[in-house]
Amino acid sequence: MENSTEKRPLILITNDDGITSAGICALAEAVIDLGDVYVVAPDSPQSGMGHAVTIGDILRIKPAYFPVKGVTAHSTSGTPVDCVKLAIYTILPKKPDLLISGINHGSNSSINVIYSGTMSAAVEGAVESIPAIGFSLLDNDADADFRASKVVARKMAKEVLKRGLPTGVCLNVNIPKLSPDKLKGLKVCRQSAGYWKDSFDERNAPNGDVYYWLKGEFTNPDRGEDTDEWALTNGFASIVPTQFDLTAHHAIADLNRWELNE
Amino acid sequence: MENSTEKRPLILITNDDGITSAGICALAEAVIDLGDVYVVAPDSPQSGMGHAVTIGDILRIKPAYFPVKGVTAHSTSGTPVDCVKLAIYTILPKKPDLLISGINHGSNSSINVIYSGTMSAAVEGAVESIPAIGFSLLDNDADADFRASKVVARKMAKEVLKRGLPTGVCLNVNIPKLSPDKLKGLKVCRQSAGYWKDSFDERNAPNGDVYYWLKGEFTNPDRGEDTDEWALTNGFASIVPTQFDLTAHHAIADLNRWELNE
Repeated sequence: MENSTEKRPLILITNDDGITSAGICALAEAVIDLGDVYVVAPDSPQSGMGHAVTIGDILRIKPAYFPVKGVTAHSTSGTPVDCVKLAIYTILPKKPDLLISGINHGSNSSINVIYSGTMSAAVEGAVESIPAIGFSLLDNDADADFRASKVVARKMAKEVLKRGLPTGVCLNVNIPKLSPDKLKGLKVCRQSAGYWKDSFDERNAPNGDVYYWLKGEFTNPDRGEDTDEWALTNGFASIVPTQFDLTAHHAIADLNRWELNE
Repeated sequence: MENSTEKRPLILITNDDGITSAGICALAEAVIDLGDVYVVAPDSPQSGMGHAVTIGDILRIKPAYFPVKGVTAHSTSGTPVDCVKLAIYTILPKKPDLLISGINHGSNSSINVIYSGTMSAAVEGAVESIPAIGFSLLDNDADADFRASKVVARKMAKEVLKRGLPTGVCLNVNIPKLSPDKLKGLKVCRQSAGYWKDSFDERNAPNGDVYYWLKGEFTNPDRGEDTDEWALTNGFASIVPTQFDLTAHHAIADLNRWELNE
């Protein structure tokens, strides 16, 4: 006779805003009754870390307080990708059935996916053949309203636990800044071809030294109605299947016409 | 009548091993006569930084000594992606005609592309619509033999300056550890489905605290003869067209069958 607790899925939660953020707490609350929930998250904010991994330095892990009852929580000195690796190989009793990352304070739609620590954790899940989802709310406020995000996160976590995901694919889920009753639904999308118009703010330190702050303005020339940006602008949560095979397969035939070996 | 110096292409060089590495020096030597060469590179090694970008901290730029004559060089306190942005928006007199990154000390083939600062700089070039190539040599030694890599880098830089690249695509070029006469040629490939079997080395600090080092062993179950790993193992430099659209387009139809709005 099987022990019923062995049937409960193991859910790993991480993020890039750090273990004390409101978003990771909201995510744990949304799924706490769906399985055994472990939080392994950075001890400090790691936004913009992309797929950074710590290879030239040591990593530390500490048991952590977490405000949601029933969660086993650890903080680490590493990046979101480090957290996934540390969780799988040193903390968890078995491979997780689901990895969820977020809920990020701010959008990871369109080109943001490549800069995002939240999504890199999900992509690392896909690399490790773990069904994985990154969640991001289009609201940077520390006290953002996560109610609609929690509805979406719970729905998606249940669906992915039930159905799994194709090999090498994770999901990038973004939620518009709306109350749950205003959210129009969920929409499967492609990544829109938006980008950041960057610039730098040049300033002087008290000693006269020059330093810079990155500034940017998001621009989306992609008018497609099948994009994440379109969905979000029109009141839908966007779901983009996301992969770590970066090969531009469509460009291979063209490149094969180049005379590279002559 | 045009000024002939205005016709010289502007070539931006960066890397993730830092401005003092042998690899970036080899890359500059390989292309110095092809255009006006600017080096903007991290002031310290940034391997494994992925697509990290500095958004919560300041950035500094310093004019730097560089051992190749004719190069204008700056070091920055940022990541490889920061270097690309700082170069384009604060240092260079105009948008570069070519961005080249490397030559990395160590492979960025297969799954390594997502962890690689070298390749993230090239991908950032693609985001900025600049033809871009990342170069990596399969040799981690500080005094690696870059002769074959220089031949490949020069060839590819000339080709891309002449032909350009498709929108949203950069090139991931890896070179096997071979002398120039042993190199069999250049091969256009897809990213192989390899991955790292990770583990952590657990150690104790003098005060008893536990800390961890990431270890890993690269594994490639992908037997395809169209992959970068196959090319490299068989004596070819691998050229993988690489994109920042992470959408798993093949998964969209399946996901659209899920009942997400019921």
